[in-house]
Amino acid sequence: MVLVGFGTVGQGVAESIARKNAMIKARFGEDIRIVAAFDSRTLASNKNGLDPMVLISRKIEKGKLGKTRTVEIREMLPSIDYDVMVEMTPTNINDGEPGLGHIKAALSQGRHVVTSNKGPLALKFREISKLAKKSGVSLRFEASVGGATPVINLTTELLVCEKICSIRGILNGTSNYILDRMESESMEFEAALKEAQQMGIAEADPSYDIDGIDSACKVAILANAIMKKDVTVHDVERAGIRGITLDAINLALQENKVVRLIGEVSERGVEVSPRLIPRGHPLGIGGTRNIFQMITDLAGEVTVAGRGAGRLETASAIISDLVAILKEDGLAKKG
Amino acid sequence: MVLVGFGTVGQGVAESIARKNAMIKARFGEDIRIVAAFDSRTLASNKNGLDPMVLISRKIEKGKLGKTRTVEIREMLPSIDYDVMVEMTPTNINDGEPGLGHIKAALSQGRHVVTSNKGPLALKFREISKLAKKSGVSLRFEASVGGATPVINLTTELLVCEKICSIRGILNGTSNYILDRMESESMEFEAALKEAQQMGIAEADPSYDIDGIDSACKVAILANAIMKKDVTVHDVERAGIRGITLDAINLALQENKVVRLIGEVSERGVEVSPRLIPRGHPLGIGGTRNIFQMITDLAGEVTVAGRGAGRLETASAIISDLVAILKEDGLAKKG
Repeated sequence: MVLVGFGTVGQGVAESIARKNAMIKARFGEDIRIVAAFDSRTLASNKNGLDPMVLISRKIEKGKLGKTRTVEIREMLPSIDYDVMVEMTPTNINDGEPGLGHIKAALSQGRHVVTSNKGPLALKFREISKLAKKSGVSLRFEASVGGATPVINLTTELLVCEKICSIRGILNGTSNYILDRMESESMEFEAALKEAQQMGIAEADPSYDIDGIDSACKVAILANAIMKKDVTVHDVERAGIRGITLDAINLALQENKVVRLIGEVSERGVEVSPRLIPRGHPLGIGGTRNIFQMITDLAGEVTVAGRGAGRLETASAIISDLVAILKEDGLAKKG
Repeated sequence: MVLVGFGTVGQGVAESIARKNAMIKARFGEDIRIVAAFDSRTLASNKNGLDPMVLISRKIEKGKLGKTRTVEIREMLPSIDYDVMVEMTPTNINDGEPGLGHIKAALSQGRHVVTSNKGPLALKFREISKLAKKSGVSLRFEASVGGATPVINLTTELLVCEKICSIRGILNGTSNYILDRMESESMEFEAALKEAQQMGIAEADPSYDIDGIDSACKVAILANAIMKKDVTVHDVERAGIRGITLDAINLALQENKVVRLIGEVSERGVEVSPRLIPRGHPLGIGGTRNIFQMITDLAGEVTVAGRGAGRLETASAIISDLVAILKEDGLAKKG
């Protein structure tokens, strides 16, 4: 396996592999071997396997993994003997790079890809999923939507006989935290946003979260992956929570409802917008959780929720995809 | 496949097979063939397959499926050529019969079993799961806990690398409906129970639901299946909702909390009891839904919710188990 990207998520994956590898070997007959790891500027590689905990401490102590790269990652890949790429570089919703290039290079080489990177999936879903199909390899991306919440694998692997009529949910923990605080503490939007920024829940530039851009990326991915649509983030009708006042929230509470930023994909289209949700409805949850509700023909409705972000939480989704590939075709022999 | 039990759930399974068989054949290469169907007194069989919609209309019109049986179902099984038994007779928590006998007979013959019947699982889990293992066949029971909610398959198949530290949830829709109505309509317990009985949500004798017996069966099954414990329904510490007053619910609301009947399995043990849940917490949902929250080491928490009962909802869980077996070893050739 090759790790591309060694920030929070990459380090979480390395730690999770260190913690779970003995169990994985006992259960599936093979463990997961890291033959190369890239951060933004450097590279560590060893065809016999790198110690994941050594990688983490080197990154923390020296700020890098190893030798400075002189060429692009995609050009170095053909000389590495690996089975799976885990792509975890930061999301870029302008052109998807550099993740898109990494993913296309690996798929073209006939390597499986697991990714947490929303950019390539929200911009070029059909192109890269066709490439994976053509190469006969897996493209898995549970971590790109909902963090630890297994919404994609639940829907595609367990609800196999259900017709999925629609999916809606809370896809951004930061926005939900702000709405929840406005409601429970009677705070105005600006005060709740400031609190979220002080707690490290919201970024200094909060637009990506509160204007619904992050939610729009995720709902586009769900639309493509589960509802077999062919959309990009630009096709999503989008409204954020900047205009939500405390008055509006209090008015909703009087009717026993809460305001939530809901992403939805249905026959009508793909959209992100603030909506009124009855108290006691599953989608009325608070905190930074993500939640997804699928409306289906037999089950009626199935809801799944979990932590939408976090080092080990995102790693958890990546590990579940890696193990699915391991089960499917025994990856570990070559790395 | 053999259907044992042809009440609400059995008819839901037959209808679901009729609706989904073309899709199942297209997707998995084989369809599901019903070679025999038993109700409490009669039997229909055809080694070339029975039409599921004809079975349903015959049952509705004539109150029976076919010829009156003269011997026990378990004695007739050896003469039938089948691969999977779907056991859907009513739950009996005294001795698990007749379901327990049917399940043991099928497993001993080397046939897979899919069941919605809580009795055998809440009383004799280890015995029948050992028997399945010895015979090298599958024993699947997603429908026995949470109706359409895929809690068992989600946990055992998707959260494979997670250490499951505890599971808690709302396992009985009738109790939750009563608590929800007391809270939202300021009704006393007796009035809410009466309303639930009039609506067909609660039975004339409501003890099984409101005293937590149904929840205790389900939490025992989860303890055995997911947490690898060895318990029966009798090992569950149990308190129901009969003693919950409107005063208690209003007091909780003042602290922004709701009262819910929670089943929990953890290192501390297995129990069912009313608890205070903060508003906005996933477990604070209303209505007749069932919900389950798993606390794990990497993902942190994963919650899944769905409809806990209903004809097609329960059938949905059974069909998902049947398809899992079909995927595992191509069941359909022999029925």
